[in-house]
Amino acid sequence: MTARAEILRVAEGLSLGPGPVALAVDVGGTGMKAALFDSAGRLVDALTAPTPECTQSAASEVMAVIADFRSTFAADHEGHPIAEAAVVIPGIVDEAGGTGIHSANLGWRNVPFRSLLSESLNLEVRLSHDVRSAGRAEFELVEDTPDDAVMITIGTGIAAAIRVGGRLISAGGYAGEVGFTEVSVDTAEGLFRGPIEHIASASSIAKRYSQRSGTAVAGSLDVLDAVHAGDPIARQVFAEAVDGLGAVCAQIAAVVAPETIILGGGLSGADELLDGVEAALRSRLDFHQMPSIRRAGLGPVAGLIGAGLLTRDPA
Amino acid sequence: MTARAEILRVAEGLSLGPGPVALAVDVGGTGMKAALFDSAGRLVDALTAPTPECTQSAASEVMAVIADFRSTFAADHEGHPIAEAAVVIPGIVDEAGGTGIHSANLGWRNVPFRSLLSESLNLEVRLSHDVRSAGRAEFELVEDTPDDAVMITIGTGIAAAIRVGGRLISAGGYAGEVGFTEVSVDTAEGLFRGPIEHIASASSIAKRYSQRSGTAVAGSLDVLDAVHAGDPIARQVFAEAVDGLGAVCAQIAAVVAPETIILGGGLSGADELLDGVEAALRSRLDFHQMPSIRRAGLGPVAGLIGAGLLTRDPA
Repeated sequence: MTARAEILRVAEGLSLGPGPVALAVDVGGTGMKAALFDSAGRLVDALTAPTPECTQSAASEVMAVIADFRSTFAADHEGHPIAEAAVVIPGIVDEAGGTGIHSANLGWRNVPFRSLLSESLNLEVRLSHDVRSAGRAEFELVEDTPDDAVMITIGTGIAAAIRVGGRLISAGGYAGEVGFTEVSVDTAEGLFRGPIEHIASASSIAKRYSQRSGTAVAGSLDVLDAVHAGDPIARQVFAEAVDGLGAVCAQIAAVVAPETIILGGGLSGADELLDGVEAALRSRLDFHQMPSIRRAGLGPVAGLIGAGLLTRDPA
Repeated sequence: MTARAEILRVAEGLSLGPGPVALAVDVGGTGMKAALFDSAGRLVDALTAPTPECTQSAASEVMAVIADFRSTFAADHEGHPIAEAAVVIPGIVDEAGGTGIHSANLGWRNVPFRSLLSESLNLEVRLSHDVRSAGRAEFELVEDTPDDAVMITIGTGIAAAIRVGGRLISAGGYAGEVGFTEVSVDTAEGLFRGPIEHIASASSIAKRYSQRSGTAVAGSLDVLDAVHAGDPIARQVFAEAVDGLGAVCAQIAAVVAPETIILGGGLSGADELLDGVEAALRSRLDFHQMPSIRRAGLGPVAGLIGAGLLTRDPA
C-alpha cells in the first residue's frame, strides 16, 4: 500500500491550479488514499487506509472511511475548510450520473456514490474512474505526453486510460476496461488463455507465485523482491505477467496506435516491468510503429492527483 | 469482385454534396473500383478492374489502371470534365505526406502516390486509407450512426475505421490496423493462435476451405455458397472465422467501447456473418455493454464513396 510519505513526496511542487479547498480520495482495490488540497491547488496533507471489505453491494464501509478522512483533515487543518470533494473509484463508473455501476474487485453494484456522499459530507462531490483520473493527471501534468497516449494501471485490477488526439475518452465509462480481455501466454504450466487480470494484475501475480512456490506472499511487491533475489519461480511468474501485458499493449496499439504507453500502479517502479513489457510488445508488433514505454511520472499517486483535478473543472 | 451494377445501385440517391467533378478510386486487394461524380456530388458512372499484380514495390501497375479509368470516363462523359481525384488504398497510409507506406497484401513500400498521380493525371489528387474512408462514408452518410462506432472491413485484409466522440481517428495511419492482432480460436484442427487475417480475411477463408476440403475455390463467397448448401467443412471454416472476428471485436470493445460495430466487405451481406459475430462477441464480453452489430449500409461501395467525400474537403 502506498505510504503517506510517498504521496507527500510525489505531490511536492505540483499544483492543480486555483480552486476550492478540496478533499480528493482514490478508492483502490486494496488501499484508499486521501489528499487535502488548498485553494492554490497545493497538497496540504495526505492520509491512507486499507480498503474495507464491502460486506454488501452498497459500499457503505468505503463511504464511512471517506467520512473519516474528511473529519481528520478538518480537525488537523482548521485553516483549510474543505469546500468540495472528488472521489475516484474502480470498475465501471457512470460519471454523468455519479454512479458506481460495477466493481468486480470490490463487489458493489449501482451505488449512487455522488448523491450519498454529497449528503453525508454535506459537500459538492464529483465522481470519476480511478484509472481514467490517473491517466488524466499523467496526460495533463507530466511534460511531453503526446496527444495519442495510453496509461495502463496494474493494480488489484487492470484498466487503461486512453487519450486520442489530446482528448481522454470515456465512452460512458467503458473505454479502456481491458481487464477481462483475453490473452494467450505460454507459461511453465502450459498455455494460459484467459483474462489479462488473471495472469498480470498485482493480486494475480502474488496468487500465482504463492500457488506455484508453496510460499504465501502478501503482494506482488514481495514477488518482485523474490525476482531480484533470483528466485526462478518468481522470475517465471513475473515473465508470464509481463508477456500478457505485452499482448494487451499490442491489442491497444492495433486499435488506437498510441505514441506512448505509460505503465502505472505499484509495480511500475520496477525496471523489469518496463523492459519486459517493451520487449514483449516489440515481439508482437508487425508493421506497427513501436510506442515508447514509460512509467507513470506521478507513480501510485496519479489517481489521487487526478481526483484533485476534477475539483478544478467547471461545475 | 464488386460489379459495376452494384456500385450504381448502392450509390443511387446518394450525394457527396457540391464540389468539383471528381474521379474517385478504391484500390482493393483483389479489385479496383472507380466512380465519376458530378459537380452536385451525384454518381455519373462507375468502372471496375482486377487489381494488377505489382511486380515491383512501386505500384506503377496500379497507377496505370487509375490512368485508364480516367481516360475511359473522359471519353464517355465529355460533359463532366474531371477536375480533381481521390484515391484510397490499403495498408499504412501517410495521409499528410500522400504516401503509401506499406501494403502487406499488395507489396508496395513508401510509394508517393499523391505526387506521382498528380503528375500523371495532371489533377489535384487526395490520398487516404481504404478502410478509414469506408468508415467515414458509413459514419457520415448512413443515418443514426452513433458518435462511438467502429467499422471493420473484411476483405483481402482486415482493418477497422474507428470513430471516437464523433471523430474518425487516424494516429498517423496506424489506428485500426487490427489485421495482425493475435486471436486464439478453437478449430477442427486444434487451437489456432495467430493474426486474425490468417483465419478470417476473405482470402484466408477461401484458402482454409480449399486446403481442408481438397476443393479449390476462387473466393470467400464460394465458401459462403457452400455454407448455404450445408457443406460441413465450409460451415466449420466459416464458424472459425466468425469466432476470430468476435475475438477482435471484443478487444476493440475493451479499448474504445463503441455503441455500434459495423461489418463491411463482400461477406457482410451474409446474415451468418452478422449473427455469428454477434454471438461470438457476446460470449466473450464480461461486464461490457454489448455493441449493436450491423452491416455496412453502403455495402462494398463504402470505400469508393469515402474517396468521393475526400474531394469535398477543404483544400
